[in-house]
Amino acid sequence: MRQVVLSGGVGGARFLLGLVEVVEPAGVTIVANVGDDLEVLGLHVSPDLDTILYTLAGLGDEERGWGRKDESWNALATVSALRGETWFRVGDRDLGLHLVRTQALREGRSLSEVTGRLATAVGLEPTLLPATDQPLRTWLDTPAGSFSFQEWFVARGHRDEVDRVRFEGAMSARPAPGVAAAIADADLILIAPSNPYLSIGPILAVDEIRAGLAARTAPAIAISPLVGGRAVKGPADRMLARLAGGTSAAHVASCYAGLIDALVFDESDGDDSELVARTGVRPIVAPTLMRDAADRRRLAEVVLAATALAP
Amino acid sequence: MRQVVLSGGVGGARFLLGLVEVVEPAGVTIVANVGDDLEVLGLHVSPDLDTILYTLAGLGDEERGWGRKDESWNALATVSALRGETWFRVGDRDLGLHLVRTQALREGRSLSEVTGRLATAVGLEPTLLPATDQPLRTWLDTPAGSFSFQEWFVARGHRDEVDRVRFEGAMSARPAPGVAAAIADADLILIAPSNPYLSIGPILAVDEIRAGLAARTAPAIAISPLVGGRAVKGPADRMLARLAGGTSAAHVASCYAGLIDALVFDESDGDDSELVARTGVRPIVAPTLMRDAADRRRLAEVVLAATALAP
Repeated sequence: MRQVVLSGGVGGARFLLGLVEVVEPAGVTIVANVGDDLEVLGLHVSPDLDTILYTLAGLGDEERGWGRKDESWNALATVSALRGETWFRVGDRDLGLHLVRTQALREGRSLSEVTGRLATAVGLEPTLLPATDQPLRTWLDTPAGSFSFQEWFVARGHRDEVDRVRFEGAMSARPAPGVAAAIADADLILIAPSNPYLSIGPILAVDEIRAGLAARTAPAIAISPLVGGRAVKGPADRMLARLAGGTSAAHVASCYAGLIDALVFDESDGDDSELVARTGVRPIVAPTLMRDAADRRRLAEVVLAATALAP
Repeated sequence: MRQVVLSGGVGGARFLLGLVEVVEPAGVTIVANVGDDLEVLGLHVSPDLDTILYTLAGLGDEERGWGRKDESWNALATVSALRGETWFRVGDRDLGLHLVRTQALREGRSLSEVTGRLATAVGLEPTLLPATDQPLRTWLDTPAGSFSFQEWFVARGHRDEVDRVRFEGAMSARPAPGVAAAIADADLILIAPSNPYLSIGPILAVDEIRAGLAARTAPAIAISPLVGGRAVKGPADRMLARLAGGTSAAHVASCYAGLIDALVFDESDGDDSELVARTGVRPIVAPTLMRDAADRRRLAEVVLAATALAP
């Protein structure tokens, strides 16, 4: 069995952690968001790729949800003392990865090549791919102006309402090597419980990826990131309310119109089943909150069981 | 009183620490070796500038002689786990400086501008200048081949005998802004107890700096890095034996022919006084080993007292 999972950072990584417990990890191909990628202190940082890598390799800080566990912050303390750029928190252990990646990119390697090398080094069993090797960057148009993703999210604390999400570079972005084939050959396509606009949106902004999903032969199932109409973390609910007109499971499903066969969403949103069904997507109600390993595993099992039901 | 000190790393930094205790620190201009500079993990590292900066700012690891005190090594641990470049040891706190400097250099700042900014940030009172803003790199010709300084020194543990020292880029290197004026306007010119070939040689390889010293109006005094004909640390003695024909104080003086008026050297080499005097350089015998603050201070006082004696 081959699964492809489109994924953002924290929520997606937690879901993947459960998934690789119930399927053969080597059969999983992760297509990760790179819209949040940025240059920090001259280094190329890929927050979602890193969160997935760290989480699946057991290196991540589970409580914080990003970065490395047992982290120290001494490099950044120096940067601060020298009045350098400190708005983006990079720990020392994390920095080591950014150094290796940036050096390889400067030597002409592609992001997918470097990601593969890093994944191999930490012993990752699933295949981890960036959605694209080309620069594709998320921009937010807000009443206060246009901001790059990290400026809006980190520097401004995602306080500005979002009127529009744009993906710079999407027009010329091609799927990274392996992405299109993984989608075409998959037995199951999953969209992780990530922010539809900020985490999955940039992946689907790559035309060939969206087309691959639209032309799928395998079932595609998304997991809603909302619980009781609210985001577990982050601005997904506010964005859905403003950009899709509401925070029901049907509004989540509408983000993936034509691209999914079923939507798994939380019991607390169970009343939305009828609305979801009306969009032509099969509603699957289950506990989706992932507080621990048992929760994660159960959610993955629900999704796999749903596969049998999907058209 | 304005002093200019040509200096390498460890030995020079220790000497400077004593000097700024006995003169007005703001009157001191340090012209530092950049021949050892290198790119590590894509970052510009200036080992001698950093050793001086850290030492004078009280941030250095005194025992190790280089790098930061209270240092951690987590970034490098990650680099190692990811099979990156680890031959050159860069600590986390140290890394913060390299990141800030490299970013500024990439933005088009000169090394002297960046050095000034870093020095201001750590509250350094003396003026710290790189000998040149242009790339000037030390290469060693050895029986085993030609090596860049760090490859020879760190990676090969300076085990190869040196037949010749070359300074790549010296022909087109200009003194960094402020260097020539500081030499011209100095009341005293000092050459720190650093390796004449590897630490002072690259500075003097900049034509205008050498010419400035040759045309000096102020007295110039060098301090020998040898004690009892042996280097306190590093390969200075082996290099002097092979390249100058011996390790007496006179051999040290010969490295600075025409550029100094006096040479301060250790009591253990006191028998060399006559030889030194014959080279036209005034011999000044004093304890030069710097084991602690009192030693450093006493050496600085000896040097200042010698000024009055110099022609």
